[in-house]
Amino acid sequence: MRQKIVVIGAGFAGLELVSRLKGTDCDITLIDRRNHHLFQPLLYQVATTVLSTAEVAWPVRRLFRKRKDVTTLMADVTDIDRMRKKVICADGTKVDYDWLAVATGAGHTYFGHDEWERFAPGLKTLEDATTIRRHLLQAFEKAELTGDDAERQALLTFVIIGAGPTGVELAGSIAELCHRVLPSDFRRIDTRATRIILVEAGDRILAGFDPKLSEYAASALQQRGVQVRTGAQVTDITAEGVRIGDAFLQSRTVLWAAGVRASPAAEWLGAETDRAGRAKVSETLRLPDDPSVFVLGDTAHIVSAGSMVPGVAPAAKQQGAYAARVIRAALRGKPAPPPFRYRHQGDLATIGRNAAIIDLGRLTLSGRLAWWVWGISHIYFLIGTRSRIFVALSWLWSFLTRQNSGRLITQSDKVVPRNDRQS
Amino acid sequence: MRQKIVVIGAGFAGLELVSRLKGTDCDITLIDRRNHHLFQPLLYQVATTVLSTAEVAWPVRRLFRKRKDVTTLMADVTDIDRMRKKVICADGTKVDYDWLAVATGAGHTYFGHDEWERFAPGLKTLEDATTIRRHLLQAFEKAELTGDDAERQALLTFVIIGAGPTGVELAGSIAELCHRVLPSDFRRIDTRATRIILVEAGDRILAGFDPKLSEYAASALQQRGVQVRTGAQVTDITAEGVRIGDAFLQSRTVLWAAGVRASPAAEWLGAETDRAGRAKVSETLRLPDDPSVFVLGDTAHIVSAGSMVPGVAPAAKQQGAYAARVIRAALRGKPAPPPFRYRHQGDLATIGRNAAIIDLGRLTLSGRLAWWVWGISHIYFLIGTRSRIFVALSWLWSFLTRQNSGRLITQSDKVVPRNDRQS
Repeated sequence: MRQKIVVIGAGFAGLELVSRLKGTDCDITLIDRRNHHLFQPLLYQVATTVLSTAEVAWPVRRLFRKRKDVTTLMADVTDIDRMRKKVICADGTKVDYDWLAVATGAGHTYFGHDEWERFAPGLKTLEDATTIRRHLLQAFEKAELTGDDAERQALLTFVIIGAGPTGVELAGSIAELCHRVLPSDFRRIDTRATRIILVEAGDRILAGFDPKLSEYAASALQQRGVQVRTGAQVTDITAEGVRIGDAFLQSRTVLWAAGVRASPAAEWLGAETDRAGRAKVSETLRLPDDPSVFVLGDTAHIVSAGSMVPGVAPAAKQQGAYAARVIRAALRGKPAPPPFRYRHQGDLATIGRNAAIIDLGRLTLSGRLAWWVWGISHIYFLIGTRSRIFVALSWLWSFLTRQNSGRLITQSDKVVPRNDRQS
Repeated sequence: MRQKIVVIGAGFAGLELVSRLKGTDCDITLIDRRNHHLFQPLLYQVATTVLSTAEVAWPVRRLFRKRKDVTTLMADVTDIDRMRKKVICADGTKVDYDWLAVATGAGHTYFGHDEWERFAPGLKTLEDATTIRRHLLQAFEKAELTGDDAERQALLTFVIIGAGPTGVELAGSIAELCHRVLPSDFRRIDTRATRIILVEAGDRILAGFDPKLSEYAASALQQRGVQVRTGAQVTDITAEGVRIGDAFLQSRTVLWAAGVRASPAAEWLGAETDRAGRAKVSETLRLPDDPSVFVLGDTAHIVSAGSMVPGVAPAAKQQGAYAARVIRAALRGKPAPPPFRYRHQGDLATIGRNAAIIDLGRLTLSGRLAWWVWGISHIYFLIGTRSRIFVALSWLWSFLTRQNSGRLITQSDKVVPRNDRQS
């Protein structure tokens, strides 16, 4: 009887697990509610028009087209029946498992202020990226159109909340857009006068990095026209702008890069969670009371060598690979591998052209060389030759010509009435 | 006093007009409700996953970044005040003109059955293309998931209504998707068994072409697995499928490529229209009672040499160029050029790999050579070096590997709740 392995979530952890199970002669079912794997580390470049959507996302089933042991299903998982070992989908489909891996990622949290979400979109999905892109580009379009000075000023004020890697990369990339890409395209506004404000509650940006690198990044951002405000607490967000401490800042474009909360997988599993909703797992990445269920990636609270494993792509991949080792050992009747240990490979972030930071623990790097290392390593981590060629060409084109490829306003908020379309 | 020229619509006619006015020292304002010019002849390739959105659309203001005489505005025109010579936008902006060109294109008509639209999307905008792409890809995903045979059959039945160039190109391109691109990706369904039905009310497909070419195209489609039904009248479209004559065909994916109706520009102008809503213009492409207003492209009913000018890109470009000549002559105080005459340059359509048709009037061409001519000419007509490189590479990649780049399901119908996202 072939063992049934079900993997929920086609992110970094899920893909790595399925890849590493090649040749095990099991029935593997990979379930995701999307039809694509998303390369989240470059998603901010879609939001800021550098790359287009197809360059950072790949159809999941295409990735495993040669693996006849893998069935890919696009479905919404709504529950997991651990008693009967079944995954239950919204359309009524039930999928049996002998082994289950849950790696459904994370979304945003607004720290109890869900009403802020409509005014301050976050960046987790392709739709999030095109939504942010639309907000940004529409702000310039409306500023060019309006005759009202105060409104124009509010339109040309962008606030990014949260100065982790995503917030810093968004701010830096928006600054490049305003200073390098857009200026020659507008007649009535000067896009270089856009105010870009990066707001951080902590006392420095990029708290996960070496303090020297945080300092470098802050000064590189400031050189590029980004105002960095640390120790600044956001107390309200409305359609009009943001309240920071007691001061209200008029802004029509507020982006959220602050809080992360795990997907509700722990609820399906009835598992114990931490404050961010992550399921607590054993040192073999499984539910303490159920060795047939792994929880991986941003959905899991994992402790390795006394500290929590960070929610980054390399960590997720290591977890996927570890789960594959556990399953392989069990299939062969061999002893289980030793507990999971996270090997930190370093942190990277980019601020803009010729400015990135790399923190390898003992070694730190910043500036031009770090930027090239950042770019080349990200092309290496993309999936497939086609993406590597197209992303490399897009970057080269953008570098040489100051033109960005993805400057489309799509999915407009209002429905375009039929027979009422221009272009 | 510099003359004010306002152009509404950044389609082929509008862009050509603005381009040809280079150096006239006028104040030109180009208004479109979208931020991008769309290369409609290749839009069906976005709908069928061959190209991605950014490859067939370009930000309008970028195209005229070096033309300091051109101001681009993204705005919804709601009315035109011909008495005061003002264009009125939804946000209250008013733009004065001395010369006005209205080239706002066309949308779909469902021949009095507007209720069909939600079940049978048409293909005019980028959102239309991603909507059709989503319908197509979701049909395969749902078919792979379902356990119900009748439902699976209905999901794997695609109906395209209308066999003009768009309908034929959609049908051919969907057939390639089913037969060349998708088969290895699915485990439970055979995408080659998909029924693709092209429905045409007339007695042959591609009625605008030489009958020999229609016959070739019909047989090339049939070879590729498309059922061609001519003389077939659609009498109803529902969520369940299509009624053709008296027979009801179960289908979850119905695409509309039948009727075209002009944008409501004639209403703004208070102009006389034909049955399709196109404003009737004089032989100098202007309103009979107002020589300062041009109507161009799919919005205009234009008669040249006794017959109506077709709604194709080359015709729109010729009209834009003609309007520029009229304005240039007037600016210099020279006599007006002779009436507009349409020069038909030929018709092209493609059915699939190595199969296209070209009708140049005296010369007709079909098959492999026609396909290469079609491909090369379309790359030539794209705007900008970047698009040419990227589209050529995408086609080459697709040709060599059977992989299509744009297989993303985005903008899902339902809203994805926060903290409930996989990927």
